[in-house]
Amino acid sequence: MSLLPLNGPDDQRLSELAATVDVQRDPEELALLAGDESVVQPVVPGAAVMARSVEDVAATMRWAHTHGVPVTPRGAGSGKAGGCVPTPGGLVLSLAPMTAITVVHPEHGYAEVEPGVITETFRDSMEHEHRLFYPPDPASLDWCTLGGNVATNAGGPVALKYGVTGQHVMGLTLVLADGRVIETGRRQPKDVAGYDLTSQIVGSEGTLAVIVGVRLGLLPIPREVRTALLGFSSMGEAASALVDARRAGVLPRAMEVVDPVALQRVRSTWEHEGSPFGVDEATNALLLVEVDGPEGTTEAALQAMLDGMRSGPNSVREASSAAERGALWATRREMSKRVKRGALGWVTEDIAVPLGTMPSVTAELADIGARHDLTIACYGHIGDGNLHVNVLWETEAGAGQASAAVDDVMALALRVGGTVTGEHGIGRAKTKWLEDRLGAPALALQRSLKSAWDPRGILNPGVAL
Amino acid sequence: MSLLPLNGPDDQRLSELAATVDVQRDPEELALLAGDESVVQPVVPGAAVMARSVEDVAATMRWAHTHGVPVTPRGAGSGKAGGCVPTPGGLVLSLAPMTAITVVHPEHGYAEVEPGVITETFRDSMEHEHRLFYPPDPASLDWCTLGGNVATNAGGPVALKYGVTGQHVMGLTLVLADGRVIETGRRQPKDVAGYDLTSQIVGSEGTLAVIVGVRLGLLPIPREVRTALLGFSSMGEAASALVDARRAGVLPRAMEVVDPVALQRVRSTWEHEGSPFGVDEATNALLLVEVDGPEGTTEAALQAMLDGMRSGPNSVREASSAAERGALWATRREMSKRVKRGALGWVTEDIAVPLGTMPSVTAELADIGARHDLTIACYGHIGDGNLHVNVLWETEAGAGQASAAVDDVMALALRVGGTVTGEHGIGRAKTKWLEDRLGAPALALQRSLKSAWDPRGILNPGVAL
Repeated sequence: MSLLPLNGPDDQRLSELAATVDVQRDPEELALLAGDESVVQPVVPGAAVMARSVEDVAATMRWAHTHGVPVTPRGAGSGKAGGCVPTPGGLVLSLAPMTAITVVHPEHGYAEVEPGVITETFRDSMEHEHRLFYPPDPASLDWCTLGGNVATNAGGPVALKYGVTGQHVMGLTLVLADGRVIETGRRQPKDVAGYDLTSQIVGSEGTLAVIVGVRLGLLPIPREVRTALLGFSSMGEAASALVDARRAGVLPRAMEVVDPVALQRVRSTWEHEGSPFGVDEATNALLLVEVDGPEGTTEAALQAMLDGMRSGPNSVREASSAAERGALWATRREMSKRVKRGALGWVTEDIAVPLGTMPSVTAELADIGARHDLTIACYGHIGDGNLHVNVLWETEAGAGQASAAVDDVMALALRVGGTVTGEHGIGRAKTKWLEDRLGAPALALQRSLKSAWDPRGILNPGVAL
Repeated sequence: MSLLPLNGPDDQRLSELAATVDVQRDPEELALLAGDESVVQPVVPGAAVMARSVEDVAATMRWAHTHGVPVTPRGAGSGKAGGCVPTPGGLVLSLAPMTAITVVHPEHGYAEVEPGVITETFRDSMEHEHRLFYPPDPASLDWCTLGGNVATNAGGPVALKYGVTGQHVMGLTLVLADGRVIETGRRQPKDVAGYDLTSQIVGSEGTLAVIVGVRLGLLPIPREVRTALLGFSSMGEAASALVDARRAGVLPRAMEVVDPVALQRVRSTWEHEGSPFGVDEATNALLLVEVDGPEGTTEAALQAMLDGMRSGPNSVREASSAAERGALWATRREMSKRVKRGALGWVTEDIAVPLGTMPSVTAELADIGARHDLTIACYGHIGDGNLHVNVLWETEAGAGQASAAVDDVMALALRVGGTVTGEHGIGRAKTKWLEDRLGAPALALQRSLKSAWDPRGILNPGVAL
C-alpha cells in the first residue's frame, strides 16, 4: 500500500479519528507544529493528534496504518535536524500532552515517565523529591521532552562521564506502526533475553515506533562537584589536555571547549555579562572542566587531572560557590547566541571525531573558514570528540559560500573517521551525507530493518534514512 | 528456500567450499566443536570451517546462502546456554583462528581486534603494553574470546561500574548472511547517524550476522583499587547494603555476594584453600566489594560506602596487598566449583531481578529449595541484581525435582519484573521461557528483525529466538 497523505484538515478520514482522539485542525494551531529549531523549512501538517494516553496513540496508529497516512511523532520541537518536520499532508502526533511521571522506584534505581515530561522537570523532581540523579543535560533541557531526548539520543555536557540519553534508558513502551503495544528492556542493570530493541529505538527519530513510555535509570546524587575554567595559550594545547586527562585516570563529568575564534567573539562581553571569571590576553582557548564523586574525592581527582596535563593550562580558576558555578555554566550555555552576535547569518554543524584527531581537526576547520572567506567558531563537548561548528558570514557573498564550507566540514569529519552528527541527529537536514557515513550495504540493511518495524512506511517518512 | 543441512562430512557441496577455505571434516576434530559449557546436549556438526580472514568468512557465508546450509559461528565454546551448539548437519564456522589485535589507538581510546582474541590476552596486552584498561571480566576470561563476548554480551564482576561487554563495543565489522561485509559503529564516544546496528548484534548469539572485527573502547588504568570482604549476619542485610551503597553516592566497581547456603558449603575449606580471610561463625553472608578511582580517592570512597550501610557489616577486612586481593578473587572465581562439591548433580541458573527485590527474592529462593527438597546455593553479581542460582541434589530423587524447581526459580524472577538470564544468554537452553519474558508481539517483532538480517534463516537456527 502506498502512502495516502491527508488532503488538508477537512479530509474525510479525520472524522473517524476525531471520534476517539483529540484532533487538531485549526490552521493557526497546526502552524505551531510545523517546524523545529533547525534550518529545515517548516511544513504545516494536514492535521494533528494531541495524545493524552497510550490508547490515544494506539488508536491513531491503527487508523494511520489502515488509511496509509504518514505520521510524524513530535515532542517539544526542540530538535536541531528537522526530525519532527512533517511531510505535506502528514499527521503530527504530539506526545507533549503526556506529562506524567508514572512510577518512581528509588530502591530499584529507576523511574517511568510519559514521553512529554520536560527533561528539567524530571531532573529536578528526582533530585529534590528523591535525592536521585538523572544525568543527561541537553542544552534545551528546560523545554525539551524526555520522549524527544530518547528519539534523538540527546547528549549534553555530562555525557562525557555518564553517557548520552540512551545509556540511561532501561526500557520503553512502544506503539508499533500498526497500533500494537509492546514493552522493551529491563528493570535491572543486566538482561540478555532477546535482541536489544531498546537501543534500536533510541536515536531512531520517530521512524520505527512511537515512544509512549520510558523507563529511566537513576543514580545517586554526586556528593561533590568541582568546576574549573582552564585557560590555554592555543587550541592545540587545550585539545591535548583531553588526551592527558584520560591518561591520568580521571574521567571528568564534563569537558567543554571554547576555541580561539569563539573566544575572540565573546571576550569583550565575557566579564560584564555574568561570567565570574576574566579571560586574560594570553588565553586563546578555554576548557570548562567538572569532576564529581563521593565525599572527599574530587579535590584529589581535579588535581590528578591538572598534574597530568603536560602543556598548560596557563590559568586555573575554580568556582568557589554554587553561584559562580551556575554563572559559568550559564555563560557556556549562552555561547550559541554569543558567537553569532554581529553575524549576518550562520549554519551550526555538529561533527564528532576521534579524540586524538582533535588538534588537527580544529586547525583544519580554521583553514576551511579562511578558504571560503567565512568565520568558523567552535565550542562544544570536546571530551566526547563532539564540536559544534558555527559557520558565520558577515556579507551576502558569504551566504553563498556557506554550503560549500559545510560540505568541506563534513568531508573533513568523515576523512578522519568521524561522523556528520554527534548528537543533533540526521533528521531531514543531514540525509545527504548519510550514505557517505554508513556505506551503501549498511544503509540498505537499515532500510530493511525500517520495513520490519514499519512495513507500510507510515512512520516519519523522509527522516533519518 | 528451506534449509538443506549437510549429509555429513562427505556432502558434495563441501568440495566447492574446500577449494577456498579450510574445511574440517575429521570426525574427531568435529566432536571438539559440538558443545559448550552448558547442559545442552552436544551435536557434532556436518563439517566446520576454520576461518583465518574476513574473506574466509565471506566466502563461507556466500556458499551457505547459496546452498541453504545452516551455519553456527563459534568462538572458544565457553558459552553457558548452548548458543554455539550446531543443528544436525549444520556447519560450524570457527572464528577461533582469527587472533590478531589489528589496531591500537591509545590517543583515540580504542583498539580493533579479530574475534578469536582471548579476552585475558587482550586485557593484559592493553594494560602492560599501553597502560589502558578494558574492563569486562567474564569468569572464563582466560579462554573465552572477544567475539564470543560480544555475541553473548558477556558480563562479569566489574560490569557493576563499567557495564557489560556491549558498553565497550564502539563498532563491528560484520559478514552478513549473504556474505556482504559491513561496518557498524563509531570511532569516538558520540554518533547519532543511522540506527544502532552495533547494539542489535551485541548479544544476538550468532543469529543475525557473523562478527569478524570488533572495535573496543579503552579507559585509563584506574590508579587505585581497594578491595574488602564484608561479613553480614544475614542475606537480607547484605542485600540491603547494596541499596545503601547507592544511596551513599558510591558506585563500587564490583559487589559480589555469597549467600548463607553457599557460604555454609565452602566455609570449612575457605581458609586453608587460599582465602586470605577467615569467616567467623556470626557471618552468614559475604559481600566482596571493590572501589577504584584516581589517585588519593578510594579510601574516602570505601569509607563513604561503609558509613552509608545502615545494618552491618559486622566485619570488614580490607586486602592489604596485591597478593591478598588476588587470592580473594581466586576464591570468588572458584565458588562455582566449590559449592557443587559433594553434590550428585546440579543446574546453574542466571537470573537478574530489580535491585530492591533482592532481599525478598533470596528468601523465596530458599523456600523453593525447601519445597522441592533441594539445596539452592547462590552467589553472583548482586550489585547488578544478577544471581547465579545453583540448584543442587544429593539423591537421584532430587534430580527428578530439579526441573520443577528451575521452573519455579524462573517464574519468581519474572514475577518480580526480572529476567531469566542476566548474562549467560538464551542460547538453546532457555528458549522455553523467552515468550513469557518478552511477550508475544515483541517476540514476533524480533523474528521479523531476524528475517531482515538473515532472510533465508541460515544463521544459527534454533538459537536465541
